[in-house]
Amino acid sequence: MNISKFVAPEIIFGLDAIGQVGESALRLGAKKIFVVTDYGVKNHSWVNKVLQYLDQAGLECQVWYDITSNPKDTEVARGAEEYLASECDAIVAVGGGSPIDAAKAMAIIATNGGQIQDYEGINKITRPLPPMLMVPSTAGSGSEVSQFAIIVDKQRKKKIAIISRSLVPDIAIIDPQLLQTKDAQLTAATGVDALSHAIESYVSLAANQLTDVRAIEAIRLIAENLRESVACRTNMQAKSAMAMASLQAGLAFSNAILGATHAMTHQVDGLLDLHHGETNAILLPHVMEFNLISCADKYRQVAIAMGENVTGLNKQDAAQRAISAVRRLARDIGIDYGLSAMGFREEYIPELSKNALHDACIITNPRDANADDLARIFYKAL
Amino acid sequence: MNISKFVAPEIIFGLDAIGQVGESALRLGAKKIFVVTDYGVKNHSWVNKVLQYLDQAGLECQVWYDITSNPKDTEVARGAEEYLASECDAIVAVGGGSPIDAAKAMAIIATNGGQIQDYEGINKITRPLPPMLMVPSTAGSGSEVSQFAIIVDKQRKKKIAIISRSLVPDIAIIDPQLLQTKDAQLTAATGVDALSHAIESYVSLAANQLTDVRAIEAIRLIAENLRESVACRTNMQAKSAMAMASLQAGLAFSNAILGATHAMTHQVDGLLDLHHGETNAILLPHVMEFNLISCADKYRQVAIAMGENVTGLNKQDAAQRAISAVRRLARDIGIDYGLSAMGFREEYIPELSKNALHDACIITNPRDANADDLARIFYKAL
Repeated sequence: MNISKFVAPEIIFGLDAIGQVGESALRLGAKKIFVVTDYGVKNHSWVNKVLQYLDQAGLECQVWYDITSNPKDTEVARGAEEYLASECDAIVAVGGGSPIDAAKAMAIIATNGGQIQDYEGINKITRPLPPMLMVPSTAGSGSEVSQFAIIVDKQRKKKIAIISRSLVPDIAIIDPQLLQTKDAQLTAATGVDALSHAIESYVSLAANQLTDVRAIEAIRLIAENLRESVACRTNMQAKSAMAMASLQAGLAFSNAILGATHAMTHQVDGLLDLHHGETNAILLPHVMEFNLISCADKYRQVAIAMGENVTGLNKQDAAQRAISAVRRLARDIGIDYGLSAMGFREEYIPELSKNALHDACIITNPRDANADDLARIFYKAL
Repeated sequence: MNISKFVAPEIIFGLDAIGQVGESALRLGAKKIFVVTDYGVKNHSWVNKVLQYLDQAGLECQVWYDITSNPKDTEVARGAEEYLASECDAIVAVGGGSPIDAAKAMAIIATNGGQIQDYEGINKITRPLPPMLMVPSTAGSGSEVSQFAIIVDKQRKKKIAIISRSLVPDIAIIDPQLLQTKDAQLTAATGVDALSHAIESYVSLAANQLTDVRAIEAIRLIAENLRESVACRTNMQAKSAMAMASLQAGLAFSNAILGATHAMTHQVDGLLDLHHGETNAILLPHVMEFNLISCADKYRQVAIAMGENVTGLNKQDAAQRAISAVRRLARDIGIDYGLSAMGFREEYIPELSKNALHDACIITNPRDANADDLARIFYKAL
């Protein structure tokens, strides 16, 4: 038996949970809060609500929203400077995975110095980060509870993965009401992102009994609720279930790490600035086919969690049902195309396949993979 | 939907996990460690191992073992004085639920003053506690991950429950090898304690999706492994499964709280200084019968997790299977007697029933209960 580790922030989950943001930020011991959000969400009413709650708790705030989707190293460096100049002593991020990851990266640079590339890989952060509280507005990234931050290296045009225990925020406040402002396409992309977290962490070489129960529950919730959540912006039952699914998947992958899908997706998104969830949705079933011989028993459990009837099937056929269920779900919510449709070109494959081998997520993929293996997966996903 | 909260320490789990106690204690930022253990375990080789690992990490230690099973308010007060006099700056507890709960209580008094009775109930602790790292040697109490500390008020002859987020330790290191030094009777009692945590938290009024997956996994593991763990001291597969079960049950009840079984057990144990797990094992099926009309659907899931075949049964009959499965398990591991066999007398019932209504655990019991209801349960369990 290997040694399993599990880290999670304090979690506050439920309708109107953002009402607790002021009291919670006070518990961080902070006096002045650096609030990180982005252009896409800064005008939503709930960003103002968060600011009001912080104000009512007697906390001064400085807001920073100069961040794009797939946050860039340059944006992070500017934010860290601004954080230091502001004399804030805690960070609250509000929004999707982009502002949350950007906030984590700013926290690293502000306290550990250098540039974000210095921290690529596992456990490179040595000095403590400022207290962090995260309020996610999408159900997908899981960054509000995870040890991960993913930042784009603009010059190398790739995403770098930073994994460290100190990136786990202190508090995550998850309010499913915030999901109502996402359109169908973003709901679909972030929902499949959560599914890819759950499936990759469930079959990861670092999976354990503490992460497995969370991963399987996330898969079950997504299979049962993602279609309805995409279909209707105000279906709060489905939104709540997806918020819970994303949270459970986040807790699973933060501790079990991921696999080849993410190692490959990080390359594609960094090059083309695409939505991470969409790229994942396209690559996931192809990676699952490649991985099948390494984890058929676990895929059988995935199939069952997705509601497939596997009675009487042999192990391989039961495992295949997991892959077809993922394909069907992606198609049902409108992701029925390949990488080519997103501007990805065949000529990128050799280099991206090689780069993916250096991503931290490849280490825990359940099947050994070399650059040729990954290239074959990219071709199938075109 | 209510707001759910979830807090957990950093968890390190596995064979030889205690090898990480030195490095982990260093991360607490401590210079000198107050090591709390008890008479029962202080001579086991792994207590010395823990001390060696702390020493190798360059940490000075002061050991305190003046604690009995069901730790008393007076012991805790003396320990707190000793902690302050020692100029230690962190606490490591090694042993069963007793030294772990005692260590938490010492931490409270040392930093918040007064006596332990001042903190009875929910969220009465106002000042931060010293960093705490817990190394459990039994699979049952769950205290290494929980928001609970249970201390005996010697004068009032009752257990008081202290529940507070700040009682969650910083790090829990769970090494199943430590379980090999427990005899069959203690293995049985602590194992049913874990089962009672899992079942009571699963049907608790404060249960939520984050706690439910942990509770159900604990129930499944206990039903599958407790008999084997009691049967053979060196069955490491069963010991590891029980260590994981106790951990998962601890994470569940710490966040979902418990019910009438614990509210009643706290009174009995405080009066007679009995083993908490044994009292729980006797009371649990009787409380389950009382609660059945409030949570038959959940009991049906408990029955399934315990391996019962409920196909074709109506809801009530399926729920009954959970109760008979708990009875059979307790009987199989030698707990086949009532409270009378443990020195409990009928005349205690009126007062203990009234006192149980003031225990914090009664608040989340799924069925409303008054003193007469609890008295009837006590009579059945005689």
